[in-house]
Amino acid sequence: MKRILNTETIKYLGEKVKVCGWVNTRRDHGGIIFLDLRDRTGLLQVVCSPELVKDIKEEFVLEIEGTIQKRPLKMKNEEIKTGEIELKAEKVKILAQAAVLPFDYLSKTADLKLPTFLDYRPLMIRDPKIKAIFKVGEISTNSFKNTLRNLDFTEFQSPSIVPAVAEGGAEVFHINYYKYDAFLAQSPQLYKQIMIGAFERVFTVAHVFRAEPSVTTRHLAEYISLDAEVAFIESWEELMDICEIIMKNVFSDLKKNCSQELALYQAAVPTLTVKIPRLKMREAQKIIFERTGQDHRKEPDLTPEDEKEICQFAKEKYGSELIFITHYPIKKRPFYTLADPEDQEFTLSFDLLYQGLEIATGGQRIHQYETLVKNIKKWGNKPKDFAFYLQAFEYGLPPEGGFAFGLERIVKQVLGLKNIREATPFSRDMERIDQRLSLKKKHGKKP
Amino acid sequence: MKRILNTETIKYLGEKVKVCGWVNTRRDHGGIIFLDLRDRTGLLQVVCSPELVKDIKEEFVLEIEGTIQKRPLKMKNEEIKTGEIELKAEKVKILAQAAVLPFDYLSKTADLKLPTFLDYRPLMIRDPKIKAIFKVGEISTNSFKNTLRNLDFTEFQSPSIVPAVAEGGAEVFHINYYKYDAFLAQSPQLYKQIMIGAFERVFTVAHVFRAEPSVTTRHLAEYISLDAEVAFIESWEELMDICEIIMKNVFSDLKKNCSQELALYQAAVPTLTVKIPRLKMREAQKIIFERTGQDHRKEPDLTPEDEKEICQFAKEKYGSELIFITHYPIKKRPFYTLADPEDQEFTLSFDLLYQGLEIATGGQRIHQYETLVKNIKKWGNKPKDFAFYLQAFEYGLPPEGGFAFGLERIVKQVLGLKNIREATPFSRDMERIDQRLSLKKKHGKKP
Repeated sequence: MKRILNTETIKYLGEKVKVCGWVNTRRDHGGIIFLDLRDRTGLLQVVCSPELVKDIKEEFVLEIEGTIQKRPLKMKNEEIKTGEIELKAEKVKILAQAAVLPFDYLSKTADLKLPTFLDYRPLMIRDPKIKAIFKVGEISTNSFKNTLRNLDFTEFQSPSIVPAVAEGGAEVFHINYYKYDAFLAQSPQLYKQIMIGAFERVFTVAHVFRAEPSVTTRHLAEYISLDAEVAFIESWEELMDICEIIMKNVFSDLKKNCSQELALYQAAVPTLTVKIPRLKMREAQKIIFERTGQDHRKEPDLTPEDEKEICQFAKEKYGSELIFITHYPIKKRPFYTLADPEDQEFTLSFDLLYQGLEIATGGQRIHQYETLVKNIKKWGNKPKDFAFYLQAFEYGLPPEGGFAFGLERIVKQVLGLKNIREATPFSRDMERIDQRLSLKKKHGKKP
Repeated sequence: MKRILNTETIKYLGEKVKVCGWVNTRRDHGGIIFLDLRDRTGLLQVVCSPELVKDIKEEFVLEIEGTIQKRPLKMKNEEIKTGEIELKAEKVKILAQAAVLPFDYLSKTADLKLPTFLDYRPLMIRDPKIKAIFKVGEISTNSFKNTLRNLDFTEFQSPSIVPAVAEGGAEVFHINYYKYDAFLAQSPQLYKQIMIGAFERVFTVAHVFRAEPSVTTRHLAEYISLDAEVAFIESWEELMDICEIIMKNVFSDLKKNCSQELALYQAAVPTLTVKIPRLKMREAQKIIFERTGQDHRKEPDLTPEDEKEICQFAKEKYGSELIFITHYPIKKRPFYTLADPEDQEFTLSFDLLYQGLEIATGGQRIHQYETLVKNIKKWGNKPKDFAFYLQAFEYGLPPEGGFAFGLERIVKQVLGLKNIREATPFSRDMERIDQRLSLKKKHGKKP
């Protein structure tokens, strides 16, 4: 007999079926045992005689044959798709046993601390509420891709191993590459710029790496960057227009495909009916000063608190959960960022904030070879280390710009997660690669 | 005026338009200059008076306004989409200049050696014949994803930074991870196995890393692995069935979407009308011995020459460009591979060969916790280093298996490329990260 999925059983009333899954819960009611069997589609109640399921505990993996029958009226469960039926088990085969659970992981997740969540990740990801996080990530990524494909972008794969540091030297991981030094890419920036020479419009879903020297709720050492680059822009504001379309589609795709997942977090995604407001950083600082008395008007960047405050302002004034902050100072941006021709101290750059957190960053790039060489030197780098990249400009690249979204940040904000470590299945940070690093021997020490 | 794309101009006969692109070629015909302007859609002939395009050379980036007119009859070019029209330029704006080209890169690519191709990658990728390679890669990747999505698989992102070595110790890159040792993932194997505990069927497009100690035409230090894992299989042969569907769709999607690209390489993709033959490794060796006299019947693996020979056999005997070779010896496979219950010396594993090259590998895994722990020890590893992975099995994982395709190998074989370095935009190998490594200082040495 061919296995069918749990939610398919409702079409087999009175018929024999075979199902497979994990024991979600086991309830002993005198002479009858009730199992909730979990598969990738959801739960199915299974009624068994005690001898059929002797020694079977939570998370055992079973193959069960039996007959689908109507549940007694008072046993109906409207919260699950199979709530009107149940499987009367006739044959139970154990496909895999499971150790006794370390805690009642399905019903008590809310009480667990984050480190426990992460220590028990391989088990915890089975919790529908945790699974929901990754579904939201998958749908958001696909939405990003589909939007850009519809706008005639080409996808490419950007390398993770790079020969030089593009974004700044401190927060980079070193690799021993044969006998040479190499680094993990901090972004696909240089490669997406090269690729527009062939395709004009490109995007990539890239793993990027930052050796963040501190533990925050907003940073990961390895994260997913949704990156795009656009040639032949006439104004850098076109980049924000594209970002706006992307987020509009992400939200509507989540609404369409993740209603159950969003409900588990009581999360509502905004409908982008109004245009996302655009505000210069200096203007934002002025507004924050007027609203809070905090004077950051000479600071080169917004603080995390500033970002929260200006989002609050955008919500109150424009009814928008998102806001673009533009014109960051030239000193706070990488060497390839184009200066504002009207005020060379600032750049044609932007961040997109969502509920108090930066979820994307972008801007117009320098596309003139000589200016770029000059800037590489000004930023303390050697043009010869960027010879490969510079080649693209030496042989002519048009005016262009791009942006990058942090996938885990979108997921975190959409679901209202407290810590970005929750937004990725396998968090890499200062404290952890799967297991806690404190359990590992340190570099250079013998075990 | 809004820019339109080159291939859109055919709808604007007699009208004013604005186009943008690179100067592909420049031909001086006495008092008239002909430019071929290249954008992402193709070429457009532009007729200019000499003073409009003074000093303009190949690869300059231009914005041109003018009027679309019919070409004189004898000037028609049936090989391009805009072959019946041309743009009479009225205004030419230089968006970017270009240095004098190092060689006539568009017409002489066939004469260049591979190292030159790679040294000039940022320029060379503009050649339609090189661009075609990446388009084939993109379409193949999307085809893989769409096939699996239709089979109810969930996509996830597998981490690149890992704490332990899963596939074997020698060919791995070390990272300095804060104060600890870490590695670049050789495959997403352990993570896709963990993920099936939540989703049953998962896939991932992963960058994976092998510190190959030698330079071959088949290996890259960083490559794209199209990975999938399937829970609740009843037979390991189901995995080959899925691989067969994937390749069938890859070929038909390439035929549908890449006819121009394939034509540039005189490449024809096979139509999988027959079932891909499946042959045990020992049987293959016997057949090779009978055909060639080469006796490899006691070797633990097929040699590259064996793979070519057995593909030739499959083509002659079954009319199939592809063949599955199964039952590799247990010693040649990683610790998680399931032994054949009928002959414990061999495994329930397979390689998929295409025109003489392995393009995929897969098999059923050990899903019983105790067997897995035993095998980890047998392979000389410590179970404690795999505690995180083992957790998934400790709490019950069903019978399962999976497979991985090497994207660049598919691309190489489809287009008949000589070297796999051609199949990726930015090759990482023993000799190169963008620039040749021989130009770089060695590890530990001061510049």
